[in-house]
Amino acid sequence: MDLQVDADRLRADLEANAAFGRVEYDDPEKRGRTNRTGSDANEAARDRLVDRLEDAGLDVAVDEVGNVLGTWTPDSADPAAAPVVSGSHLDSVPEGGIFDGPLGVYAALEAVRAMQDAGLEPARPVGVVSFTEEEGTTFGDGLLGSSVATGETTLEDALALEGDGETLGEALDRIGYRGDGAVDPSAWAAFYELHIEQDTVLEDAGADAGVVTTITGITHCEAVIEGEANHAGATAMGDRTDALAAASEFVLDVEAAANAVVDESSASAVGTVGSLSVSPNATNVVPGRVEAGVDVRDVEAESMDEIVAAARESLSRLERERGVDTAFERPFDVAPTPMSERLREAAHAAATDAGLTALDLHSGAAHDAMRVARVTDASLLFAPSRDGISHNPREWTDWAECAAATEVLAGALARIAVDAK
Amino acid sequence: MDLQVDADRLRADLEANAAFGRVEYDDPEKRGRTNRTGSDANEAARDRLVDRLEDAGLDVAVDEVGNVLGTWTPDSADPAAAPVVSGSHLDSVPEGGIFDGPLGVYAALEAVRAMQDAGLEPARPVGVVSFTEEEGTTFGDGLLGSSVATGETTLEDALALEGDGETLGEALDRIGYRGDGAVDPSAWAAFYELHIEQDTVLEDAGADAGVVTTITGITHCEAVIEGEANHAGATAMGDRTDALAAASEFVLDVEAAANAVVDESSASAVGTVGSLSVSPNATNVVPGRVEAGVDVRDVEAESMDEIVAAARESLSRLERERGVDTAFERPFDVAPTPMSERLREAAHAAATDAGLTALDLHSGAAHDAMRVARVTDASLLFAPSRDGISHNPREWTDWAECAAATEVLAGALARIAVDAK
Repeated sequence: MDLQVDADRLRADLEANAAFGRVEYDDPEKRGRTNRTGSDANEAARDRLVDRLEDAGLDVAVDEVGNVLGTWTPDSADPAAAPVVSGSHLDSVPEGGIFDGPLGVYAALEAVRAMQDAGLEPARPVGVVSFTEEEGTTFGDGLLGSSVATGETTLEDALALEGDGETLGEALDRIGYRGDGAVDPSAWAAFYELHIEQDTVLEDAGADAGVVTTITGITHCEAVIEGEANHAGATAMGDRTDALAAASEFVLDVEAAANAVVDESSASAVGTVGSLSVSPNATNVVPGRVEAGVDVRDVEAESMDEIVAAARESLSRLERERGVDTAFERPFDVAPTPMSERLREAAHAAATDAGLTALDLHSGAAHDAMRVARVTDASLLFAPSRDGISHNPREWTDWAECAAATEVLAGALARIAVDAK
Repeated sequence: MDLQVDADRLRADLEANAAFGRVEYDDPEKRGRTNRTGSDANEAARDRLVDRLEDAGLDVAVDEVGNVLGTWTPDSADPAAAPVVSGSHLDSVPEGGIFDGPLGVYAALEAVRAMQDAGLEPARPVGVVSFTEEEGTTFGDGLLGSSVATGETTLEDALALEGDGETLGEALDRIGYRGDGAVDPSAWAAFYELHIEQDTVLEDAGADAGVVTTITGITHCEAVIEGEANHAGATAMGDRTDALAAASEFVLDVEAAANAVVDESSASAVGTVGSLSVSPNATNVVPGRVEAGVDVRDVEAESMDEIVAAARESLSRLERERGVDTAFERPFDVAPTPMSERLREAAHAAATDAGLTALDLHSGAAHDAMRVARVTDASLLFAPSRDGISHNPREWTDWAECAAATEVLAGALARIAVDAK
């Protein structure tokens, strides 16, 4: 197989997609976009993807939750054979980067075009998918389209989610992307997702691509700390129950617990207090209540439990030592997800064939591949991220790096596609 | 002088005022109100005050910044003599209590009515004042009406302040309280303000009233901590510059610095991080930026400077140890304000005459009396606060305690009013 990825064609697609919801900055190092599910920018990005899929001869279907699937069924393929599919998502966080999601969608399309250009004769159809609302920015639940497609979330629950004053169902109706039926990954032979790494392992190693071994488990916890709101001037230091001072200890305890796990047992563990809401949040009032959102991840469920236990213990200590009341919930908990060994091997073989270097590593971020792995063989590939920055307008992957990683993806897809078994 | 404060009449006024902007709670211990300058509730509270002032025979004037002044000029008084004035404010923080402000306004009116009932013959006019926007909740600057009246803030600057989509000038126009001329405390013989203590000194001592020696100085500082926003799952613990973890150390450093000053030099010192805003404030993103609002107060300027210096030092340390960038400003700084000795003595004499106990203490909170003290003799009196709670629906002072403190106020005002010098 000699697949030639067209770096300029891929770049043109990514640049065109980056224009939808573009945010302007004076700093030329920043390229940002806000592409929320159901927005005008999101509609435009979807419209362009559909056009590009059709330009390449793919049959496009949109399912009831707005997932877009283009399928290439060449003469060589058995139309009834299980397809091999690749893709990612087009939505972004507010002021997110231009690669997180779109790279995986347009790399999949470029891989199909490269197969077509090379005259490859697949034994099975090849699909390109874009899942709805991966970021969860607007309707609250991330990985939403892939969760519905894999039965993790019901269609009814998903369409009823509220965001920006309307439900997801209403938003999809409005932009013309509430289609028919359901994209069904359980009927796929295999799924590959290419994504930017969002960390510096590949950059530090100078590698062209990453092959993910395991997607870390993710827990989200919510902590509430209740003190007593009071006048900042009239309340003596000794008479206070300051919810923010207590919450500050909690933040540092979670950080220390994660660092301890990293030092002692699992280098991939992370613990983050990402959100903190203070009430009443006025300079001249002793804070009465703080709500904190905690994110804990690792490839080992045990180390996640260890960090969560430390967070609970911190709150108990703060109740004893600072007299606050606390509450703690763990509403979201997903176990670590190993990737398919067969697909990982195909990716490494593709890299070797193309004269590129690929590295095994784990993924600290959740991706649609995590959901798809529940119902069929799935593999997650990474392209390097400059300085590991993402969810940020400074997110960057050089165009040549995008093309190299796409070459690994194309080679791996081709291996699975030509194999009739 | 035998002045009889009518406890029921005072309570009826305070209960009626509490209805404007009332917030309902299931808990019967909570009595809250939200009375923002320029709101319907604020207009209604002002209307009722004007009615009650006129019912008592006072001439009412509203100045250009919405300060309301009622003046009682009995036949005994020289209309040209400098008046003695008392009052406070009607606005509240969001979900504030029902006594903070209104007690001082209606106690002043009740004191005038008690003088009238007793047939007192003042040598000078007696005024009741309600200052605009004491809390600074809506238009940003606290003590606003008294600041304009005393020349601390220009009328133009005050009227141009923005809040809730309009300027103060527009808001006052809309509710019919942008009047003419200026209330001028520099022309007053003396000013008394009765307020709830907002701390537990009087409650702990079982005293009826407090006579403030000094209003603490107040500094507001703004700290900005810049780290790097990044993916909470994909960014290893060692690769982070977490602005919230750094800010948590800052919060605890400010608390520790204030506690150290309390232990070592000045028991009245306080330091509070009251507000904290986190960006992007999403559970799954390492915080990139935190803005913190710091409030520092004491009766000694030196101990305030000591806490502010510790806050600066904390930020320098965090730059070195955590790699964050920081900025620090001290946009608001008011020196400690001693109260008039002559007026304090009159208040103590009034308490003794009435068989009530009065205690010297400092005020940790700023009050309009702080501004008025710049231009004439001023005195601040306190009524007890249950558990010291204020800026909170649990704020409470028993009706009998309101009446007792008002009796001290009335006696003090009468002493100044009958004295023609």
